[in-house]
Amino acid sequence: MKGFAMLSINNLGWIEKEKPVAGPYDAIVRPLALSPCTSDIHTVFEGAIGDRHNMILGHEAVGIIEDVGNEVKDFKAGDKVIVPAITPDWRSLEVQAGFQQHSNGMLAGWKFSNFKDGVFAEYFHVNDADMNLALLPDEISLESAVMITDMMTTGFHGAELADIQLGSSVAVIGIGAVGLMAIAGAKLRGAGRILAVGSRPVCVEAAKFYGATDIINYKNGDIAKQILDLTSGKGVDRVILAGGTTETLIQAVSVVKPGGVVSNVNYHGKGDFLPIPRVEWGCGMAHKKIVGGLCPGGRLRMEMLVDLVKYKRVDLSKLVTHVYKGLDKIEDALIQMKEKPRDLIKPVVIIDK
Amino acid sequence: MKGFAMLSINNLGWIEKEKPVAGPYDAIVRPLALSPCTSDIHTVFEGAIGDRHNMILGHEAVGIIEDVGNEVKDFKAGDKVIVPAITPDWRSLEVQAGFQQHSNGMLAGWKFSNFKDGVFAEYFHVNDADMNLALLPDEISLESAVMITDMMTTGFHGAELADIQLGSSVAVIGIGAVGLMAIAGAKLRGAGRILAVGSRPVCVEAAKFYGATDIINYKNGDIAKQILDLTSGKGVDRVILAGGTTETLIQAVSVVKPGGVVSNVNYHGKGDFLPIPRVEWGCGMAHKKIVGGLCPGGRLRMEMLVDLVKYKRVDLSKLVTHVYKGLDKIEDALIQMKEKPRDLIKPVVIIDK
Amino acid sequence: MKGFAMLSINNLGWIEKEKPVAGPYDAIVRPLALSPCTSDIHTVFEGAIGDRHNMILGHEAVGIIEDVGNEVKDFKAGDKVIVPAITPDWRSLEVQAGFQQHSNGMLAGWKFSNFKDGVFAEYFHVNDADMNLALLPDEISLESAVMITDMMTTGFHGAELADIQLGSSVAVIGIGAVGLMAIAGAKLRGAGRILAVGSRPVCVEAAKFYGATDIINYKNGDIAKQILDLTSGKGVDRVILAGGTTETLIQAVSVVKPGGVVSNVNYHGKGDFLPIPRVEWGCGMAHKKIVGGLCPGGRLRMEMLVDLVKYKRVDLSKLVTHVYKGLDKIEDALIQMKEKPRDLIKPVVIIDK
Amino acid sequence: MKGFAMLSINNLGWIEKEKPVAGPYDAIVRPLALSPCTSDIHTVFEGAIGDRHNMILGHEAVGIIEDVGNEVKDFKAGDKVIVPAITPDWRSLEVQAGFQQHSNGMLAGWKFSNFKDGVFAEYFHVNDADMNLALLPDEISLESAVMITDMMTTGFHGAELADIQLGSSVAVIGIGAVGLMAIAGAKLRGAGRILAVGSRPVCVEAAKFYGATDIINYKNGDIAKQILDLTSGKGVDRVILAGGTTETLIQAVSVVKPGGVVSNVNYHGKGDFLPIPRVEWGCGMAHKKIVGGLCPGGRLRMEMLVDLVKYKRVDLSKLVTHVYKGLDKIEDALIQMKEKPRDLIKPVVIIDK
Repeated sequence: MKGFAMLSINNLGWIEKEKPVAGPYDAIVRPLALSPCTSDIHTVFEGAIGDRHNMILGHEAVGIIEDVGNEVKDFKAGDKVIVPAITPDWRSLEVQAGFQQHSNGMLAGWKFSNFKDGVFAEYFHVNDADMNLALLPDEISLESAVMITDMMTTGFHGAELADIQLGSSVAVIGIGAVGLMAIAGAKLRGAGRILAVGSRPVCVEAAKFYGATDIINYKNGDIAKQILDLTSGKGVDRVILAGGTTETLIQAVSVVKPGGVVSNVNYHGKGDFLPIPRVEWGCGMAHKKIVGGLCPGGRLRMEMLVDLVKYKRVDLSKLVTHVYKGLDKIEDALIQMKEKPRDLIKPVVIIDK
Repeated sequence: MKGFAMLSINNLGWIEKEKPVAGPYDAIVRPLALSPCTSDIHTVFEGAIGDRHNMILGHEAVGIIEDVGNEVKDFKAGDKVIVPAITPDWRSLEVQAGFQQHSNGMLAGWKFSNFKDGVFAEYFHVNDADMNLALLPDEISLESAVMITDMMTTGFHGAELADIQLGSSVAVIGIGAVGLMAIAGAKLRGAGRILAVGSRPVCVEAAKFYGATDIINYKNGDIAKQILDLTSGKGVDRVILAGGTTETLIQAVSVVKPGGVVSNVNYHGKGDFLPIPRVEWGCGMAHKKIVGGLCPGGRLRMEMLVDLVKYKRVDLSKLVTHVYKGLDKIEDALIQMKEKPRDLIKPVVIIDK
Repeated sequence: MKGFAMLSINNLGWIEKEKPVAGPYDAIVRPLALSPCTSDIHTVFEGAIGDRHNMILGHEAVGIIEDVGNEVKDFKAGDKVIVPAITPDWRSLEVQAGFQQHSNGMLAGWKFSNFKDGVFAEYFHVNDADMNLALLPDEISLESAVMITDMMTTGFHGAELADIQLGSSVAVIGIGAVGLMAIAGAKLRGAGRILAVGSRPVCVEAAKFYGATDIINYKNGDIAKQILDLTSGKGVDRVILAGGTTETLIQAVSVVKPGGVVSNVNYHGKGDFLPIPRVEWGCGMAHKKIVGGLCPGGRLRMEMLVDLVKYKRVDLSKLVTHVYKGLDKIEDALIQMKEKPRDLIKPVVIIDK
Repeated sequence: MKGFAMLSINNLGWIEKEKPVAGPYDAIVRPLALSPCTSDIHTVFEGAIGDRHNMILGHEAVGIIEDVGNEVKDFKAGDKVIVPAITPDWRSLEVQAGFQQHSNGMLAGWKFSNFKDGVFAEYFHVNDADMNLALLPDEISLESAVMITDMMTTGFHGAELADIQLGSSVAVIGIGAVGLMAIAGAKLRGAGRILAVGSRPVCVEAAKFYGATDIINYKNGDIAKQILDLTSGKGVDRVILAGGTTETLIQAVSVVKPGGVVSNVNYHGKGDFLPIPRVEWGCGMAHKKIVGGLCPGGRLRMEMLVDLVKYKRVDLSKLVTHVYKGLDKIEDALIQMKEKPRDLIKPVVIIDK
């Protein structure tokens, strides 16, 4: 079968591989919709996870089951399924400790296009199908469904980690797809005022659609100062980092109130340190909690997010600005993700057949 | 001044009292909008809190400050304010323990029309104004604002106590004003499916407006059975009790999943015991948590709820089905609350001057 | 092989069965130490879990691995292991939701002597060895180790569910082995005053050893009244139910403060309802949380409890009052558990060979 | 009256001031025991809180009430009391939000020797006596009692913020008095293995007394490497920072497991930033929570800590290595705290009279 791969750092290309085979608990899935992720770009062009050779890219997919192992009970060939970007080893001590994302190692719940071939191929392999797949209901479009697998679970996890209370004020820094989902997630956890930091018009419009009440543009000056000015110098209850650099943590800590939370869902691929500003952090005494984490995956998570889409708690369609047809278009979509034209949020490739 | 009072159990009437006087930290408020509460009915006609003589009724009010004590810093005569039904003693050990509602005694954060004269009068007294009042923004109507003081904070507290997660399924039993706010609160905490139990058409319509996805009518049979049937026998993640009797706990425990929560915000005025069904509670082993609590009051709570209204996270106007003009109409409104015509959710009395 | 079994309700006896065989992820274990549990008594003589025929009893064991399946990685024949009473199916949606105890069904994490043969046999079968067994360090005696599997994890879970804070006052009702471990657990979570309710001298002495500061004897009058008297009428922050009947919940709710927790780890085998007293529960408004749950099992739990024993945070030896030698003595030990002589806490059977 | 004061940065001396006067809710206290704190040293010799002129130092005291205001209800002249280092404004929105330490401003619950005169004087003033003082029981010695006011509440708060679970492994970095109390607090929250980092023999001995199972000496090499070596490369569940510099955060993050917590109770008086190591923090994705906070003060906190001492859950006497007699000795004690002789943990000055 063919797949679109990272040949080595900075090199992309189509390769031929053996079609994967399902172990007793696994599934082989044929993609129906795929989406490239900024982390695919980091992987190939920044070497964020180190060098990889001939590794098929991609971790955002919905598809149709081609084959399942003997021990799979709840899924069968022909089922349309949502495939989470994170597919943990459920039989691990980290799961027993409550952290599926780090099953068998820090971040090791992330397998596709990291430790094994990704989803940009004619077929791909899913470990522990009963625990990691979720049925795709007919009423959810393929474009929306593929947004659940990573963007929605990641942005919503930013809102979860932020421990938002009813009426909390929240600043969301970064309004790409993950930041937009952090806004939607913050709204769904009961945030009152939501201040979104970003500048591209297509994202600003989407940010308002998802619940932002104030838009802050870094081009208008220091964003910490702008947030403090908008809040009479008090700052906000919660900050979600969904963009920026390691240095953005300085601004986040500066604007969050004592007792508040800074929640990071931005993958930091560069730099040695994220600096916490000592004085603004109350000399270590301000109860400004800093936390960040990989999104949860697995079946139950997907089923609960599916319910939020199905019962119209959130409309994912605004995330998808460009739709391609045919597996071979994944190359164009990925390059587009790299070049980030002004009107792009996320591209999706639909594989009909 | 005149006030509408409980003369004794089963007896209502207008009485004359001295206009209250502000202590150093207190405020005297003149009402702009009032609403009777079901608990006023329980108080008078069921003797739920015992006998009271010539006690002015009412605890849902917004108003204009007439006078403040010398030590009040953040409010002044002429300010329009939201007055929470619960006005705690902030200087108490229970507040230090995190439970303002029980400051200086179980439920003792509830003062109006319980331990002191209520708000159905030309003027009323508010303890610790800086800690208990919140400014009423111009963009919120009086009708909506008075719903914040009790209905919104109570229903939302039901959702808070239920510890709803993103995508949780929630059953809300009872769809009067508190139940409707529990639905809205559940939606704002990220519930997926929301099954609402009720029957009156005006409430059913409002339940759907606030986020109910399924309506269950007790006239169609046992509600526990209906909920189990709708969920393929699995039950729901959370139950909020906002109506029913002490026996309704049996149904709630029966339909909640192991690891779930039953959250009560229904004031139980009658009966000796609330029965937990032993087998359905897993013989005490099912991790089905049962919790119930008086709504939070005080200034910060009101300010955070105000933000939710101001930033349009919830529209309270659907709760108010009947509007009266003039303080003297409080009698009609209260009687209406007692008689509960089919088209009633909540009546509000606007006092223009 | 032979095993000591429930032949039917009220009938006990030795039976012959095929030696169990390990599936790919499983282990076969030969017991080194066994202990009967009160729930074995409930099972046989009260029919608490319904009728069972020729089911080998017992769920408290440490042993030596006889054989493992092909897929087992971390254990091998000859390893000495602690076998938790609760051995969940880790590949289940309930585990994904955080409740291993209810994997694949309410309470279904409890398998030994419930859904399958127990440990009172020459050999027994353990599902998912890598996830459910823990190595037994040499420095822990067999007598103590077998107390970890159920008594310690259950009593400690009572303390965990109670959400004890540093300095909390705690009442523990019932001072059998589980209650004693609830006392030890409460102390290890930072309880200040611990009021223990019980009467047998051997248990009273052990209660003091484990951290009780006050002993309350039901023979001296209503225990709720005694607790209130000892606390100047204020009651306690937390109550752990480790004994009593369904009616004991009335006393527990009566003595817990508003904002407190009643935590149940008593298996309620009889009665239709556990009654919550309406008035003492603040008419549903007092924030008196009621929760109860089956103890956690599995490997990580056992490893963490092992550490507590190994680092001398708790001394389990006080629980074991009677030691027998030889598998055939399990019958005597079980009968002793039924008859509960005054000097008994727990009997242990050591199987040397 | 006379008091021992910071005259300006680097200058100490005795000054005369008017005896303070109690407002209606306040108390005037005469000290019975005092202890200097490292933060007094930071204040004077590092200018950690900026310049101050003729400000009386000290915030660790127990004493006897000399006078109370008219509105004080629960205390009277002659009562022996524990005076917390942190005396919040209980009537503040930050208290309503759950953070007494930041009442009316970040860290502003800390008043003594910060915003107002401290306790190293013949008399000192306590705001809101009913909310901030606790009775000192006769059975607690003055030396131990004065350790409750800051060392115990701070170290224990380190354990609280760390969210320790039963059996957690914990590294405590720094074993001065706060670090020792973090060890004791970790043990009291149920930690299993406790690895303490420090070198002075008097502290090492005390660390073992309070519960440390392993001692790590930075003189033997990188402490992170030592901790990883001792834990088979796995690291620990929790880290409490009670010493070191801003750079110590690098080591803390490196040794904590994914899903773990780094809890800081070290007052960071120098440096611009606390660096989070990007890779070890899982590129922002490892769920390694970083939190730090000022200790809680106030009456209820003191009462709960008093209970822990009274019921012998912890023995504070090991903290006090040097005892002086007479108020005038506070100067010697303070200088000793600056010079830190090898056999010092904490000095206490007893004022008999």
